[in-house]
Amino acid sequence: MFEIIRRDGMARICKFEVHGRTIETPALLPVVNPKINTVPPRELYEKFGFGALITNSYIIRGTPDLKAKALEVGLHELLDYPGIIMTDSGTFQSHMYGEVELTNEEIVSFQKAIGTDIGTVLDIFTEPFWTKEQTADSIVTTLERTQQACDMKGEMFINGVVQGSVYPDLREDCARKMAEMDIDVHPIGGVVPLMEQYRYTELVDVVMSSKRGLNPNRPVHLFGAGHPMILALATLMGCDLFDSASYAKFARDDRMMFIDGTFRLQDMQSLDCNCPACRGHTIETLRKMDKRDRTRLIAEHNLYQIKQEMALVKRYLREGRLWELAELRCRAHPALLDALRRLRDYQDQMELFDPISRDGAIFYTGPESRNRPVYKRYLDRIGERYVPPTDKAVLFPDCQGKPYSRPYAEEFAKALKAGYCPIVASPFGPVPAELDEMYPLAQSLFPEIMDNETEEVVDMLTYRFVQFKDFKEVIEPSAIPDEGDSGLDLDLLRAKAVARYQFGLAAADALFRGEIELVKSKKTGKIRNVISDGEHVLSMRAGDGLYTLRMEGAKRIISATEWPHMRVVVADDAIPFVSEGRNVFCQFVKCSDPNLRPMEEVIVTDLNDNPIATGRMFLAPSEIPMMKKGMAVKVRSGSSDE
Amino acid sequence: MFEIIRRDGMARICKFEVHGRTIETPALLPVVNPKINTVPPRELYEKFGFGALITNSYIIRGTPDLKAKALEVGLHELLDYPGIIMTDSGTFQSHMYGEVELTNEEIVSFQKAIGTDIGTVLDIFTEPFWTKEQTADSIVTTLERTQQACDMKGEMFINGVVQGSVYPDLREDCARKMAEMDIDVHPIGGVVPLMEQYRYTELVDVVMSSKRGLNPNRPVHLFGAGHPMILALATLMGCDLFDSASYAKFARDDRMMFIDGTFRLQDMQSLDCNCPACRGHTIETLRKMDKRDRTRLIAEHNLYQIKQEMALVKRYLREGRLWELAELRCRAHPALLDALRRLRDYQDQMELFDPISRDGAIFYTGPESRNRPVYKRYLDRIGERYVPPTDKAVLFPDCQGKPYSRPYAEEFAKALKAGYCPIVASPFGPVPAELDEMYPLAQSLFPEIMDNETEEVVDMLTYRFVQFKDFKEVIEPSAIPDEGDSGLDLDLLRAKAVARYQFGLAAADALFRGEIELVKSKKTGKIRNVISDGEHVLSMRAGDGLYTLRMEGAKRIISATEWPHMRVVVADDAIPFVSEGRNVFCQFVKCSDPNLRPMEEVIVTDLNDNPIATGRMFLAPSEIPMMKKGMAVKVRSGSSDE
Repeated sequence: MFEIIRRDGMARICKFEVHGRTIETPALLPVVNPKINTVPPRELYEKFGFGALITNSYIIRGTPDLKAKALEVGLHELLDYPGIIMTDSGTFQSHMYGEVELTNEEIVSFQKAIGTDIGTVLDIFTEPFWTKEQTADSIVTTLERTQQACDMKGEMFINGVVQGSVYPDLREDCARKMAEMDIDVHPIGGVVPLMEQYRYTELVDVVMSSKRGLNPNRPVHLFGAGHPMILALATLMGCDLFDSASYAKFARDDRMMFIDGTFRLQDMQSLDCNCPACRGHTIETLRKMDKRDRTRLIAEHNLYQIKQEMALVKRYLREGRLWELAELRCRAHPALLDALRRLRDYQDQMELFDPISRDGAIFYTGPESRNRPVYKRYLDRIGERYVPPTDKAVLFPDCQGKPYSRPYAEEFAKALKAGYCPIVASPFGPVPAELDEMYPLAQSLFPEIMDNETEEVVDMLTYRFVQFKDFKEVIEPSAIPDEGDSGLDLDLLRAKAVARYQFGLAAADALFRGEIELVKSKKTGKIRNVISDGEHVLSMRAGDGLYTLRMEGAKRIISATEWPHMRVVVADDAIPFVSEGRNVFCQFVKCSDPNLRPMEEVIVTDLNDNPIATGRMFLAPSEIPMMKKGMAVKVRSGSSDE
Repeated sequence: MFEIIRRDGMARICKFEVHGRTIETPALLPVVNPKINTVPPRELYEKFGFGALITNSYIIRGTPDLKAKALEVGLHELLDYPGIIMTDSGTFQSHMYGEVELTNEEIVSFQKAIGTDIGTVLDIFTEPFWTKEQTADSIVTTLERTQQACDMKGEMFINGVVQGSVYPDLREDCARKMAEMDIDVHPIGGVVPLMEQYRYTELVDVVMSSKRGLNPNRPVHLFGAGHPMILALATLMGCDLFDSASYAKFARDDRMMFIDGTFRLQDMQSLDCNCPACRGHTIETLRKMDKRDRTRLIAEHNLYQIKQEMALVKRYLREGRLWELAELRCRAHPALLDALRRLRDYQDQMELFDPISRDGAIFYTGPESRNRPVYKRYLDRIGERYVPPTDKAVLFPDCQGKPYSRPYAEEFAKALKAGYCPIVASPFGPVPAELDEMYPLAQSLFPEIMDNETEEVVDMLTYRFVQFKDFKEVIEPSAIPDEGDSGLDLDLLRAKAVARYQFGLAAADALFRGEIELVKSKKTGKIRNVISDGEHVLSMRAGDGLYTLRMEGAKRIISATEWPHMRVVVADDAIPFVSEGRNVFCQFVKCSDPNLRPMEEVIVTDLNDNPIATGRMFLAPSEIPMMKKGMAVKVRSGSSDE
């Protein structure tokens, strides 16, 4: 029914199945007015590939011939549309035109009667200007109606709309209650006025607070969001479904959507669009077209723009680079830049879902990039888990050509020989030499001309780090003494420092017990394997400089650390499969360490804390109990490591 | 031959005519290898609309059958191309493969013989790793060869390539010497290695220093620049021509260009492209295609991407928003962000060409936006031209809903009544209430969540302003006394403060002599006309809050200020036309005030300093003497103001 396939932090690519039809999210649903056939639904499906659409059951019910036909042949035949059909309930009409004259029961049963795939409760649209009391009262009604719809729904899926105006606590509370009900999709409603008024910071508050309460096992639909410029940001915050009525509404007003805004045909000086709809046209031929044909052409143009951006969002998501796309897109308007900046307030929430490692490099796009959870994660971890090998440090400036130990090879060697710990003041914060090959440090690209803001933050972070880690002496590179024989070995320091960073102090001590042998790559000289007292406990990945945990290492961590550190506990019936190297699926997980993050190395155990396998976490721990299907841990066989 | 039609700072849209064929710049010239017909030249012209291309005369000359045919039927027939043909000379081959075996004289005369429209000197490619001496020596040779080519050229246009490796002073000096020669196009050469190595900051240095020396009356060609992601930045710096060999070279390697980078077909997970070439294809069908067909398809895809971005660059240029597009594009890679940040060093140079006013709002995209010359201009002008009406000030924080006198209406009134000058700490710097309706202040949009860097700069600027303008008392809004009767009138203060800002102190004194009457709009309450001693001297534009100068005002400024303040002096034979309201064309301008900027109000005078007309400057003063045609001043009739 709903399964996460790929993820990039809170953003995700999922399969969503409704009545035998499947779409991949994030997805946009075009809104079809049942009375106006701007682009025929069959073309939306066949020509544009939209596997789901929205239409309005309230309008159908209020239009006698449509109502009769819908009841007779069903909604799919009425619209001639073979995909998933979602219907709205009249709530938006109540927002636009005041009260609607029908009951929740009437509209839910009507939706059921006409064969809607996903019906919507007649929820109460909470306006941004409402008082908190008014909002809270109306949510009570919305929840009652949602419960009523759940009781009535039968085979029909139900949209349980999160309301709460601009009050984050009401949003979160409403979301939590919706999560407990038997609904199927989580729309976030009442946000259209915020978008129309460019109140994007509040949109961020609304989405992020709703997400805290929602069930991760259901798609989240940002009701009414469909402009291409918002899709990257909304997907980044974990929204899965979007819809657009504007593609057609704008077309009727001769307004063309582009990624950087919406432009009126009369204001445009030329038509510079490569889309299939615009092909062969110039601004002049478009203006001269028959109004009806032009509306159709512009509607198709608008759909192509949306489709193109949705595809781009997915591409960046798959590449683990959605933050970058969102940062680019949010510079199209200062109000969107505000939204991007507001995300800083949600760094903690987002960090829970942020992967420990990604493929490819992290690009810095400006000081706003420091709001990404990967920055906070690094600082938290070195604060807790980095142990300096000496109490003397040399501070190096940031430089290009990472890892730092390449351009600074001689200086680092000299410093270590003299008993100093080399630390680079990177835009991530202080980077001890031992960690410089590790994600995200070596896999990042910054401009050489650093902005003052980042420079000041880095100075401050470095100063605090030096204090906090009790360095007694901090010098400049030029002051490194020429002699010394400290015996500090960068490879050995690196091997243990990375283990501490990844697994914690106690686990690292257990892994680095007794005699240590480092097996290095003949080609690159980099650490490949760690052998401790003759046991191969860890392998280092060349791509991200982080460890793959081996069964021998896993056993030591289990003995040396308190439960549930690094554990994912599975039910007895899954043990035979997992021990053979099969992946762990959500429904078999009994519990897991809440401090784990996606892509983190984990130890799969049975109920008696016996290690069964090692693997990598695919989900966030908080998601697993809610998911009905899908992989929780990608397992490596206990006996044959990758 | 070459005429500036529209401009946005140093960026410009021009008409460039060569042998009866005209193209509009900025324009990209596809490079056609005469031996490999990836996309036939006629299709480049007819299907893609490329009005000019580049091919290589050195390759043609070295290939017997091509050479024979070119000499027999001419280059246009050889390529079957009806547009403008530029030929390269073999210089790039010398960069790639070492020395070439022919003389400058041979290749120039060969280009002439085959009917090239724009031929190229066999200049010496200055590599980025060359010493300064080596570079300087080679420039001497390049200049000699360029002189030789000028002597030989006849009807052929000549590319005189600016060289100078990464040495800005050598680049500027070479450019200045090229500007003095009888060449027709100014390519900036030797930059391909910089782009290949992502050394974009040095590319900025090279272009900006070359631009200082070049003749504005000739198109500037950034040789070898054709990736869509660089076009906005390069156009912003005043480059007019670009070329791309990559569209075909990449296609042969199965590499597809997109605005955010170049991707290998084998790495792409899906083909999400709406371009006409990709239409109907998926990543699978594309991979399965015959290699030859696929190369053709990808080459066309790459051309469509380039064409689309070139069109977008022109759109932003026309809208006066090219800075915004460049700021967006430069976030695609940290090395491009560096280039954007490097532009801060060229704020003075760019300010000379930056218009006094633009249509539409200025969007802030991040702290880098403060590098735009409009920020510097504002601070310079208030430093020189703002006179506080009192020595007590109230400092207000920045807010939304400009002009500031709207949200702060009551507070401003109270402050003025008590004898305090209201000053808002805006991201532009301190904004006295009197200037708040004026461009760029009211026409700008900033995020509400300000970055630390901008906040600190604004604090510093405000502090300095208060010191510099000798305010004796500065208070918070909450401390404004409840009573007072200072008699300060915001409208009257505004009327004069804007005049000072726009025309300088002495001019404003002359304009505001004697009894002043302000005619206000009945609808908006805003100042429309300024009547001084019964004479209508100024009209205020609603759009940008700046003045239009009337003849009566012009006469007063002439009497009250030293020559050449605000003057554009025209030759006698233009006087009859200009006094009737015809525009001033460059060839009739004798001299002009070097402190004028594009879009600035000017007074057109005869040689005896008699005012003939008022108008708006279209060019920068430094450009006028070099331009052979085109408008210098858009004139308003002396008797009937707009």
